Amino acid sequence: MDIVCLLFDEITALDAIGPYEVLSRLPGARTRFAGPREGLVRSENRALGLHVDVALEHVTSCDLLLVPGGFGARKLALDPALLAELQRLDQTTQITASVCTGALLLAAAGLLNGRKATTHWAYFEQLRALGAEPIAERYVRDGKYATAAGVSAGIDLGLALALELAGQEVAEAIQLSIEYDPTPPLAAGNPARVAPALRERLYSRSHRRDHELSAPAK
Amino acid sequence: MDIVCLLFDEITALDAIGPYEVLSRLPGARTRFAGPREGLVRSENRALGLHVDVALEHVTSCDLLLVPGGFGARKLALDPALLAELQRLDQTTQITASVCTGALLLAAAGLLNGRKATTHWAYFEQLRALGAEPIAERYVRDGKYATAAGVSAGIDLGLALALELAGQEVAEAIQLSIEYDPTPPLAAGNPARVAPALRERLYSRSHRRDHELSAPAK
Repeated sequence: MDIVCLLFDEITALDAIGPYEVLSRLPGARTRFAGPREGLVRSENRALGLHVDVALEHVTSCDLLLVPGGFGARKLALDPALLAELQRLDQTTQITASVCTGALLLAAAGLLNGRKATTHWAYFEQLRALGAEPIAERYVRDGKYATAAGVSAGIDLGLALALELAGQEVAEAIQLSIEYDPTPPLAAGNPARVAPALRERLYSRSHRRDHELSAPAK
Repeated sequence: MDIVCLLFDEITALDAIGPYEVLSRLPGARTRFAGPREGLVRSENRALGLHVDVALEHVTSCDLLLVPGGFGARKLALDPALLAELQRLDQTTQITASVCTGALLLAAAGLLNGRKATTHWAYFEQLRALGAEPIAERYVRDGKYATAAGVSAGIDLGLALALELAGQEVAEAIQLSIEYDPTPPLAAGNPARVAPALRERLYSRSHRRDHELSAPAK
């Protein structure tokens, strides 16, 4: 299982690291971190540096392509060269997956046209505008495309893919090895089950920077 | 809130990135990634490169110290210079926290002597041998020390600390922003609720490399 995970500037780090921590434990898995160019990228808040080991253009194929989200993903969704690389690599995959607003990148590349998919709850309209049919589920499978909801949902998707690819015994061993027995001290993780005021405040905050994306390039 | 997260070679990446993704969203939080020396480190399986932005010796103080685990943590628990840095920094913190076998590092530094603490389920004996009292809970608080169980438990600990430090409204907003509504497709995350054979197999595998740590240095 040859796994390629996309990294880029202004990524939401957990989008990538959640499923990485699960999928890289599959027997025989080889995980590579690829990006627009080799070298250091930084997370959404600039606090964390992550290393792109290989430029996407040098990746000839992979079995599983994993596309995380973040403000940087929304930026890259406007980059035709990057979208062309995703289209090319997608033709070699067994599974193409996204977490959070990584789905907007897949959709912008035309890969989710007419397909059921999910993304971070605050970006359903954008996903629909890019031709996909947004579904409010933890993760959605349509053909070889597997999309997860916001940020932490990538862990659940990772386990679901581990189950599919390697069977229950392996998936259970991975779950136990990362002690994934979630016990959130609060119950505010699902947008359908929180106060509308909280949801609206977060929605506005999520989109606060997105107007930069439609401004003309400097 | 000045947060310092330790990074090192052979770290379990999710141990660090789970609580980072939560805690760095606290209003006014500043997160720095520190390690034995500045530069690139790689995760336990070498697949992921993470960047240490500041050498630990150059960090004069922090409010919250976060110590992740992994095989590299078990190695560093034998490094007196690193343990001395942790002891020094701990004297400046409001909260000193660990995830997974990061607790073994805190314990080796003498910070958990006689304290209740937790760690990855496969390392309770090692934690006890280092002077702490292991407790099988998702996370444990004793004085200013907050320790989480294995790998993914750092997300739950992060939210518990966010709740404590910034109140329910902020913690709920963080939980919703990372859409933390876990829906594991399997139920094998708790060692007390899996088949003993699975637990024993994983226990052996977890400790497979640990004999290297007691071998004489080359």
